[in-house]
Amino acid sequence: MSTLSTIDTPAALIEQARMQHNIARMQQRMNELGVRFRPHVKTSKCIDVAKAQRDAGAQGITVSTLKEAEQFFAGGFTDILYAVGMAPHRLPHALDLRRRGCALGIITDSVESARAIAAFGRANGEVFDVLIEVDTDGHRSGIRPEEDALLDVAHALHDGGMRLGGVMTHAGSSYELDTPEALRAMAEQERSGCVRAAQRLRGAGLPCPAVSVGSTPTALMAQALDGVTEVRAGVYVFFDLVMRNVGVCTEADIALSVLTTVIGHQAEKGWAIVDAGWMAMSRDRGTQKQKRDFGYGQVCGIDGKVLDGYVLSGANQEHGILSREGAPDADIAARFPIGTRLRILPNHACATGAQFPEYHALSEEGALKTWGRFHGW
Amino acid sequence: MSTLSTIDTPAALIEQARMQHNIARMQQRMNELGVRFRPHVKTSKCIDVAKAQRDAGAQGITVSTLKEAEQFFAGGFTDILYAVGMAPHRLPHALDLRRRGCALGIITDSVESARAIAAFGRANGEVFDVLIEVDTDGHRSGIRPEEDALLDVAHALHDGGMRLGGVMTHAGSSYELDTPEALRAMAEQERSGCVRAAQRLRGAGLPCPAVSVGSTPTALMAQALDGVTEVRAGVYVFFDLVMRNVGVCTEADIALSVLTTVIGHQAEKGWAIVDAGWMAMSRDRGTQKQKRDFGYGQVCGIDGKVLDGYVLSGANQEHGILSREGAPDADIAARFPIGTRLRILPNHACATGAQFPEYHALSEEGALKTWGRFHGW
Repeated sequence: MSTLSTIDTPAALIEQARMQHNIARMQQRMNELGVRFRPHVKTSKCIDVAKAQRDAGAQGITVSTLKEAEQFFAGGFTDILYAVGMAPHRLPHALDLRRRGCALGIITDSVESARAIAAFGRANGEVFDVLIEVDTDGHRSGIRPEEDALLDVAHALHDGGMRLGGVMTHAGSSYELDTPEALRAMAEQERSGCVRAAQRLRGAGLPCPAVSVGSTPTALMAQALDGVTEVRAGVYVFFDLVMRNVGVCTEADIALSVLTTVIGHQAEKGWAIVDAGWMAMSRDRGTQKQKRDFGYGQVCGIDGKVLDGYVLSGANQEHGILSREGAPDADIAARFPIGTRLRILPNHACATGAQFPEYHALSEEGALKTWGRFHGW
Repeated sequence: MSTLSTIDTPAALIEQARMQHNIARMQQRMNELGVRFRPHVKTSKCIDVAKAQRDAGAQGITVSTLKEAEQFFAGGFTDILYAVGMAPHRLPHALDLRRRGCALGIITDSVESARAIAAFGRANGEVFDVLIEVDTDGHRSGIRPEEDALLDVAHALHDGGMRLGGVMTHAGSSYELDTPEALRAMAEQERSGCVRAAQRLRGAGLPCPAVSVGSTPTALMAQALDGVTEVRAGVYVFFDLVMRNVGVCTEADIALSVLTTVIGHQAEKGWAIVDAGWMAMSRDRGTQKQKRDFGYGQVCGIDGKVLDGYVLSGANQEHGILSREGAPDADIAARFPIGTRLRILPNHACATGAQFPEYHALSEEGALKTWGRFHGW
């Protein structure tokens, strides 16, 4: 039987009890706020994880690529929102998915793309479901709620014969905050901006059934979601050190870790060398500018307990440098002899997961199952 | 027929003419210096790329995981050095590879691992070929040339019945330098330290056939390699922006790029949004502390020509933010309309390549071929 002591390393480990706790926490919060929940499965890219989210009450999923849409559709998910601005060259693929029975929603934030979607839809006899992307925090894409372009895009879609599915936004700048007050304010900014965009559409006599918002920090910190119909969030399912620093989880909630083996030491420097380098952890250094910098990750024992002060302070492709913060640990070689197995909590679960072709899911009873994940586009 | 205008994006593109030029340049330099060349295939993890290196004169390959050893052995490569310190739990896999005919060399830098290798080898009637890892720049693993441990490890292997294959080192700190003088000095430090370790072994009556050194910057900048038998280097095959800043290539040498499509704009900010986010580019920000920071990459036209001053200034998972350095480009939407295809040169070719399940190799005639690459462990 596979165990944490026998599987090869590095390995991406999911502690199922923690994951289930995270899923239940988010779903309960959404139920309390009276909104549908549509998890973003770009974090896990894993059917087994998404099924656990659905079993807990999630309605539909959000994806970041059509490959994800394709794979989750094959895995039995039919209500899918592709939440990256539709590139016209991908319309034939989207059409194909819809013709095979996938209720695929798409998004846009420009008149140019809206016209391309409508023209392609009409040419192929397809009425696409299209949401308009709204910019509520200036961090990326979208149309600001008061911009003229909002109505121009809506008309290009609606008058062009497409189904105007509503508005959606993502306050990704919530990742840069770290106080409850700032997070609550950002959640309200995200909500009110998206609701305002919906009001403008409805005020112009246009349909706007869905008002979809979300990021893990704003979803968990929102005090009320009046006018919102649906929330999307992704990384909450695993959490990570960036989210710990944002303040929406603790280390004990982090469900994804990298199992690693000590392969050597530089004892004079207080270093243990492990087989989790950046190829395993990813190059994500998201905690670098946060209130606590964890290097390439927080070190835990094989049992998942945090070894406070020990971090992955450096990384080459297949080598991680494990050291103690502050004064070097002169006993590092005795503390972590060659062959010692440890777990490393990641800065960013989405990036770390993507380095692995599969997860090893650990049950409360200690059994390990292999869960596949998708790679590439 | 697939073309750069029709394949889906993001895509990892190899410009074959540039790659062949890089391969020829390195091989010619090695021939001039009178050493064998054993490329590190962790950069490409691609059989087609490694075959081009072999066809140019490379003798054997270097790998960073046993998965790579396994896959390249299946692809017809038999002389393989696994250049990460041997973890005892991987010995059965190494044994299995050798029994199937793979001339797999392994490395170690501790008495503890050396004894484990010897004990396992004797118990299984196998004489492993083992090189001792030497630390010539303090950046990672290895035994310093003058340390007592060097002879202790050598005796543990030799007296334990294993074949002492020689010494090897990697001056990875060369990546932090950026002047010819400093690089030449580091190349000499790498050479002399490794040769010194070999002399100590031979002085003690121990065999030391191979003296193996290398990193891309030191391999290209070494003035002489007296006493060295073999050089290893990896990233030179593609080069990248980090190597451009180190000073061993120009942008025009970089053979790997990410083909991307413009999917939107924030015109007031001077942003174009492209479908190459960090999932495509990787989170590697290796140029951040170098003489020129390229953000997440240098923007080029679809023809591969550098668009000076345009970089990927930000990245989310599937969104890249493309902007001009300095003053925002007020004409960004007209310059790069939706659907425009561009290429992004990566900070770090090893990290960017790893995000993709395959490469698209572009011939000088403009034909595209798909070359697979390995993922995971």
